[in-house]
Amino acid sequence: MGQNNSLSNRILYQVKGKISIITLNQPDKLNALGGDDYTYLAKLMEKSNKDPSTVITLINSSGRYFSSGADYKFIKKYHELINDKKNDEKEIERQNDRFWFNDFIPRNSYLTDCFINHGKIIVACLNGPAIGLSAAMVALSDIIYSKNDDTFLLYPFTKIGLVTEGSTSYSLLLRLGLSRTNEALLLSKPIYNKDLVSCGFVNKCYNMDDYNKKDQVEVNKSTEKFNELILNELSDSVKFLNGDSIKDIKKLINSNIRLYYNSANSKEVIQGYKKWLTGVPQRQFINLANKNIKHKL
Amino acid sequence: MGQNNSLSNRILYQVKGKISIITLNQPDKLNALGGDDYTYLAKLMEKSNKDPSTVITLINSSGRYFSSGADYKFIKKYHELINDKKNDEKEIERQNDRFWFNDFIPRNSYLTDCFINHGKIIVACLNGPAIGLSAAMVALSDIIYSKNDDTFLLYPFTKIGLVTEGSTSYSLLLRLGLSRTNEALLLSKPIYNKDLVSCGFVNKCYNMDDYNKKDQVEVNKSTEKFNELILNELSDSVKFLNGDSIKDIKKLINSNIRLYYNSANSKEVIQGYKKWLTGVPQRQFINLANKNIKHKL
Amino acid sequence: MGQNNSLSNRILYQVKGKISIITLNQPDKLNALGGDDYTYLAKLMEKSNKDPSTVITLINSSGRYFSSGADYKFIKKYHELINDKKNDEKEIERQNDRFWFNDFIPRNSYLTDCFINHGKIIVACLNGPAIGLSAAMVALSDIIYSKNDDTFLLYPFTKIGLVTEGSTSYSLLLRLGLSRTNEALLLSKPIYNKDLVSCGFVNKCYNMDDYNKKDQVEVNKSTEKFNELILNELSDSVKFLNGDSIKDIKKLINSNIRLYYNSANSKEVIQGYKKWLTGVPQRQFINLANKNIKHKL
Amino acid sequence: MGQNNSLSNRILYQVKGKISIITLNQPDKLNALGGDDYTYLAKLMEKSNKDPSTVITLINSSGRYFSSGADYKFIKKYHELINDKKNDEKEIERQNDRFWFNDFIPRNSYLTDCFINHGKIIVACLNGPAIGLSAAMVALSDIIYSKNDDTFLLYPFTKIGLVTEGSTSYSLLLRLGLSRTNEALLLSKPIYNKDLVSCGFVNKCYNMDDYNKKDQVEVNKSTEKFNELILNELSDSVKFLNGDSIKDIKKLINSNIRLYYNSANSKEVIQGYKKWLTGVPQRQFINLANKNIKHKL
Amino acid sequence: MGQNNSLSNRILYQVKGKISIITLNQPDKLNALGGDDYTYLAKLMEKSNKDPSTVITLINSSGRYFSSGADYKFIKKYHELINDKKNDEKEIERQNDRFWFNDFIPRNSYLTDCFINHGKIIVACLNGPAIGLSAAMVALSDIIYSKNDDTFLLYPFTKIGLVTEGSTSYSLLLRLGLSRTNEALLLSKPIYNKDLVSCGFVNKCYNMDDYNKKDQVEVNKSTEKFNELILNELSDSVKFLNGDSIKDIKKLINSNIRLYYNSANSKEVIQGYKKWLTGVPQRQFINLANKNIKHKL
Amino acid sequence: MGQNNSLSNRILYQVKGKISIITLNQPDKLNALGGDDYTYLAKLMEKSNKDPSTVITLINSSGRYFSSGADYKFIKKYHELINDKKNDEKEIERQNDRFWFNDFIPRNSYLTDCFINHGKIIVACLNGPAIGLSAAMVALSDIIYSKNDDTFLLYPFTKIGLVTEGSTSYSLLLRLGLSRTNEALLLSKPIYNKDLVSCGFVNKCYNMDDYNKKDQVEVNKSTEKFNELILNELSDSVKFLNGDSIKDIKKLINSNIRLYYNSANSKEVIQGYKKWLTGVPQRQFINLANKNIKHKL
Repeated sequence: MGQNNSLSNRILYQVKGKISIITLNQPDKLNALGGDDYTYLAKLMEKSNKDPSTVITLINSSGRYFSSGADYKFIKKYHELINDKKNDEKEIERQNDRFWFNDFIPRNSYLTDCFINHGKIIVACLNGPAIGLSAAMVALSDIIYSKNDDTFLLYPFTKIGLVTEGSTSYSLLLRLGLSRTNEALLLSKPIYNKDLVSCGFVNKCYNMDDYNKKDQVEVNKSTEKFNELILNELSDSVKFLNGDSIKDIKKLINSNIRLYYNSANSKEVIQGYKKWLTGVPQRQFINLANKNIKHKL
Repeated sequence: MGQNNSLSNRILYQVKGKISIITLNQPDKLNALGGDDYTYLAKLMEKSNKDPSTVITLINSSGRYFSSGADYKFIKKYHELINDKKNDEKEIERQNDRFWFNDFIPRNSYLTDCFINHGKIIVACLNGPAIGLSAAMVALSDIIYSKNDDTFLLYPFTKIGLVTEGSTSYSLLLRLGLSRTNEALLLSKPIYNKDLVSCGFVNKCYNMDDYNKKDQVEVNKSTEKFNELILNELSDSVKFLNGDSIKDIKKLINSNIRLYYNSANSKEVIQGYKKWLTGVPQRQFINLANKNIKHKL
Repeated sequence: MGQNNSLSNRILYQVKGKISIITLNQPDKLNALGGDDYTYLAKLMEKSNKDPSTVITLINSSGRYFSSGADYKFIKKYHELINDKKNDEKEIERQNDRFWFNDFIPRNSYLTDCFINHGKIIVACLNGPAIGLSAAMVALSDIIYSKNDDTFLLYPFTKIGLVTEGSTSYSLLLRLGLSRTNEALLLSKPIYNKDLVSCGFVNKCYNMDDYNKKDQVEVNKSTEKFNELILNELSDSVKFLNGDSIKDIKKLINSNIRLYYNSANSKEVIQGYKKWLTGVPQRQFINLANKNIKHKL
Repeated sequence: MGQNNSLSNRILYQVKGKISIITLNQPDKLNALGGDDYTYLAKLMEKSNKDPSTVITLINSSGRYFSSGADYKFIKKYHELINDKKNDEKEIERQNDRFWFNDFIPRNSYLTDCFINHGKIIVACLNGPAIGLSAAMVALSDIIYSKNDDTFLLYPFTKIGLVTEGSTSYSLLLRLGLSRTNEALLLSKPIYNKDLVSCGFVNKCYNMDDYNKKDQVEVNKSTEKFNELILNELSDSVKFLNGDSIKDIKKLINSNIRLYYNSANSKEVIQGYKKWLTGVPQRQFINLANKNIKHKL
Repeated sequence: MGQNNSLSNRILYQVKGKISIITLNQPDKLNALGGDDYTYLAKLMEKSNKDPSTVITLINSSGRYFSSGADYKFIKKYHELINDKKNDEKEIERQNDRFWFNDFIPRNSYLTDCFINHGKIIVACLNGPAIGLSAAMVALSDIIYSKNDDTFLLYPFTKIGLVTEGSTSYSLLLRLGLSRTNEALLLSKPIYNKDLVSCGFVNKCYNMDDYNKKDQVEVNKSTEKFNELILNELSDSVKFLNGDSIKDIKKLINSNIRLYYNSANSKEVIQGYKKWLTGVPQRQFINLANKNIKHKL
Repeated sequence: MGQNNSLSNRILYQVKGKISIITLNQPDKLNALGGDDYTYLAKLMEKSNKDPSTVITLINSSGRYFSSGADYKFIKKYHELINDKKNDEKEIERQNDRFWFNDFIPRNSYLTDCFINHGKIIVACLNGPAIGLSAAMVALSDIIYSKNDDTFLLYPFTKIGLVTEGSTSYSLLLRLGLSRTNEALLLSKPIYNKDLVSCGFVNKCYNMDDYNKKDQVEVNKSTEKFNELILNELSDSVKFLNGDSIKDIKKLINSNIRLYYNSANSKEVIQGYKKWLTGVPQRQFINLANKNIKHKL
């Protein structure tokens, strides 16, 4: 992995039988995703949606983390921007606005829409923690499996000075219940695997322990086994199922909730954009970065 | 039980104190229900609803299964129909249409409505597995008790090429949460007693083990004890409760959800009818029957 | 505690850092609340809501019970009224009507509204059981912590001949699921701490056991420790969180549910008022009082 | 017209360019529709829905009336049934039940669903009055044109002792406003063309007067001209429109209302069935028939 | 009329055939209603609702105005209160709070609920203008007739510094459309009879002109004729209608809107109460009173 | 007007008393708006929203048209893009995608959100026709006035191969009723002033005729008078109104509809983006441009 750092190598797309597989493939970066990665993920979701041969869209990852969330490179960009234009505050403001307006709004609203309005069964395989917008996509998946108790979901929006993303203001309410949603979203607390299993958010935990968690190779391998195991089980499950029935029943289920998902999506992207305009989240990201963010978030 | 195979013997109706009791009474058939049985069940629900002396409608069963779902005799009918009219495909199509149009639509929509709009507390006693439309009625009950861990619910609609029945596209979402609902409805996976208890779908499991599960007599007896136990507990509970309060509070609770239940009902019956028109579910039923369906479903 | 029995002593209000603290302070009465207490509680909720310095409204209590619900003095009043006016039934009816019309309706609808439309994180600390309208307020809190397994919630409306209060016809559905809600509201069954934890209603139980439960002093002390512990943890949590984000995200979450909360509120207060007009709940309260109500409810 | 009285002659189906045309073709019967006619109409709606070549489903009629509603032959049947079985009341009840259960429920719910969930633009051409279920289908059409002021809609459900049909409990509310809906549905008052135009229910009235209204030939001809005129105008309109855009926008519009339509459908068919079970509407129909119903309704 | 100024003389209640008639009977006061009048009106609505002999609740009035809204005596009370307690601002605040809390909240929420949840056809006869809470009750009636073009509705909440009352934040939206609702509620503009007719809010205007509008006797008489005319027409209409059908269809229609009505009710009463607490509306009323309010509102 | 073609000159912003005024100021271009103009309009909406001194946001225009919709320059850009990159289809596709993704999605969703969630009274003054996204903003205004019968609204989305924009899939349904909405949106028919007035979409038409419609100077002047007249009337209206009441009542009204507005917004922008990706609307625009689009649309 890695030399060829093109998008199609950072996120893999395969078809096996009735299953489209989307794989986050940057284990060394803990599968942090840049803006382009998220947009590419959305495009792959659409590609899978249109493929007449498959019934399931399986999203899995690699290594230790499912995805540590948004990549921080963009903050650097912003920082450099500030330094470059020191004397022209208006220009900084203008460029900041353009950056978030033209990038943040379409990316988040499109990615979220691709999950909300997906016609196939979305299965997410949580090999490890998921954070931020990536964790929001997990919460928009239909069926969720986890590898072991190292898994958690983290939505640190109040820590960064943002609002919820990826329709989590509705999806978590629907799936975690009100008390846990409030703790997760208002207090930015992680939700650990045990709770995810007990409240039915995670359908099944495979309890595949990595005995030497620091051994990257061991972890990578066990994640691969975890992915393989699920793929095999799903292939078996889906063999005797009727694809049209699946599509129609998913529509029936979603007709109860789609209005709320869509409404959350449009409110969140615009409110999020306005937060970025204030400059607060940018500063917060930089502060956190300076304090070894990996452990704090 | 059994010689007299009239409807009123296949499903019993009694009143004890403030409780109307409806009992599925064909343990030898695993309480599989034919079309007439389902309609008769609906009529008994209405009878109970109108009885001014009772406050609870208790639905229990007999033997090993709560109900193995729809009886397969109707498939035979269809099969014979095909053989009879070999040379007249239009006539087969016409008769098939009439069969499902005039039987399936009213039965399913009426039965579902009788549960959705019932004014009393519906208590379901799960002595064992429930499948298909019968399991859908369990999911429309207000309070649910189970006998032991042999219990499961199974909604095999995607396996048969149908869509959801009995408003399960909403009722399961409401009661199992989204992840479990997707597994149950999209992948046709059974939901086992342990999960039903942990997610609060089952209010209480009585853990009445049948040590020799193959001994039909033992199983029948323990189911009777299970039914008796619940009846006694409920009789005690309800003794000091105000019937008008119960009726009014149930209306208040249901006002939050009835729109969704009713909408699901009408969509499901028409979409289900269209599936039957294609002939796919019929063929699937026959296939499964040939492969010893009891174990596969 | 105690000598000075003014409202501001019966319910305390403090601000510590970013947290407003409302404390029920009548441990000897098991924190039973009279009509004025409930209205005062609502006023304190508003006071906290308007305080620009805080982000969390923490509600805790004292002693053994969080709150044993509505105080019974008002029943006495009613009883005496009946005795005083023995010969003038119309006057009794008129005064009864006025009493419930002018006191019950505004108190319940205002208190409920103050919780539903509160802008900060409401955290409830369940040191022990909560009953009736007090328990309804717990169910309208955002995050809930419990002290130990002695905790339960009890909504005995069908026992008294009332209807649900405090929008519980929606709030419990949202938080306990349908099966548990039906048992709690239709059968007036207590919901014990273990179930509250397992269904996610309680975010965390602190398992602070009182080894000698009859020792009032020990219990009082351990409740104080429980309150202190939570206050400290929350103070830590909230230190690094962005207040505007919290406010905005709470609005986003609530936009999914507020319509139902508000609708329940107006229906419940009017239906409740009509129940009181019949005289049934009054008689029921007196009956229960005569039978040592503390143990029966 | 006429000699050949097969279904396909009673209701015509043609395709002209991008328009499917369904024509009620029994002017001598004022286009009263029997049970089979309604079901056949539903099938033609589905046929049109699946036709990849068309974008509009145009429903027009012939002669003086769009449709005088349900044919009364079925009442005769019921009457004769009563006479035949004079001595066996239970059998009468049983047969009555079966008749309405197996015919009324599926016909009404299927027909209504075919209109609610139709993917193309439904255009209804009101050449004259429409009554009952036929008038309900008009209210489920997307665009409505009228010939002249002789047109009216009549929903005489409270006159016959029924409940609303064809989701009119929602569709009229949506299209006529609350005051007019109440007069139309609760008081069984006709809504005349002028009001239909002024409230926007009818998109356009063509004011094609029949100067000698008793001359059946003249009326028939002017209705044909009316139909032709609309067909030509629509053909022109639709020539430059994008079919995919139409389909997608119709979905977007309907997503706001479909939940209510579907819910009304399921409630109405079951409640209607229960009304028929009482025997009241049957007697009322016979009474009205004896009093020259044409003028009274 | 007049000498006997008891409640039962200020608002009359009669039953004629299938119609309960509630008549506002203080023409000399332009049927301004005090707090007790509104509560009494609500009680009469309930009385009518429970009367098994009637199907319609007809609300009419007397003289020139349907109702000029809330009586201003209560402002005087408040004014005097201020003068009496000049030196004790806290006491003024406390009494003001109690006054609006215990009177305003229950009256408005109960009256509104009695209209929203009424089971019969509510017919309002607008003999002339209706203002404020009285006009809100007109907007909650099912069918509305007007006498002539002198009629208007006025909701001057933004003029007085209040919020909407009687669920008008939803009822007007439903019945007047968004543009007219905004002008009526946000700009406090009257809606005149012509617009009420053209938008279908008023079902029919009887155009009974009073040629000498200053002649109180003539106006009183023509209002009586107007009331009589409607009563006769309704008696005729309702003669052949099925009461159960009416009740059931009204429920079906209302199931689409009741959630919004109820939610508006609870929000409006609490927000209105908070406005009164500020003292702003009181001052505004006194200002307006000093400027000959009759012409300005 | 004119020489200085900066954004702030193309759309003017003024404050007069309690009214913020936004003026489209390119009469020579019929106030066609480019992408930057729409974004700037949104920013001005926000500026007005935050201004503590005003209560009304008045949007007016200049000359003959309110706004002829989106400027066609962007099509030229696209056309040139195609010509420039003739040999690199992938690059064309990529640039096309980026163009619509980064510009179309944020602009439309932000602009729509700024109208939906605006806290003040939005008044639109229709001096003449409005088309497309501009017409969508009119439909999101609270109160609408028109100059004369030359006014119309046109939503030509099915003509161009797009989907609805600016939440018109809900806003028109709410304001025009279903029949007119279907004609306007599905058949791309203009809605003329007379219909806009009769259905209450336009609150008032000022009937200010331009006798010599070709005389640009006369038209410009009469539009200025129209704007002035409304400004004066509004200034008078608003003088005695309570700003807090207005804000609070607007929130109450909008709470009934905001969910639908927001949901429409997110669905429309993503579906619209996908339409642009196909290249169909671009080709259609060019075709129409070649055929003298001004008259055809």
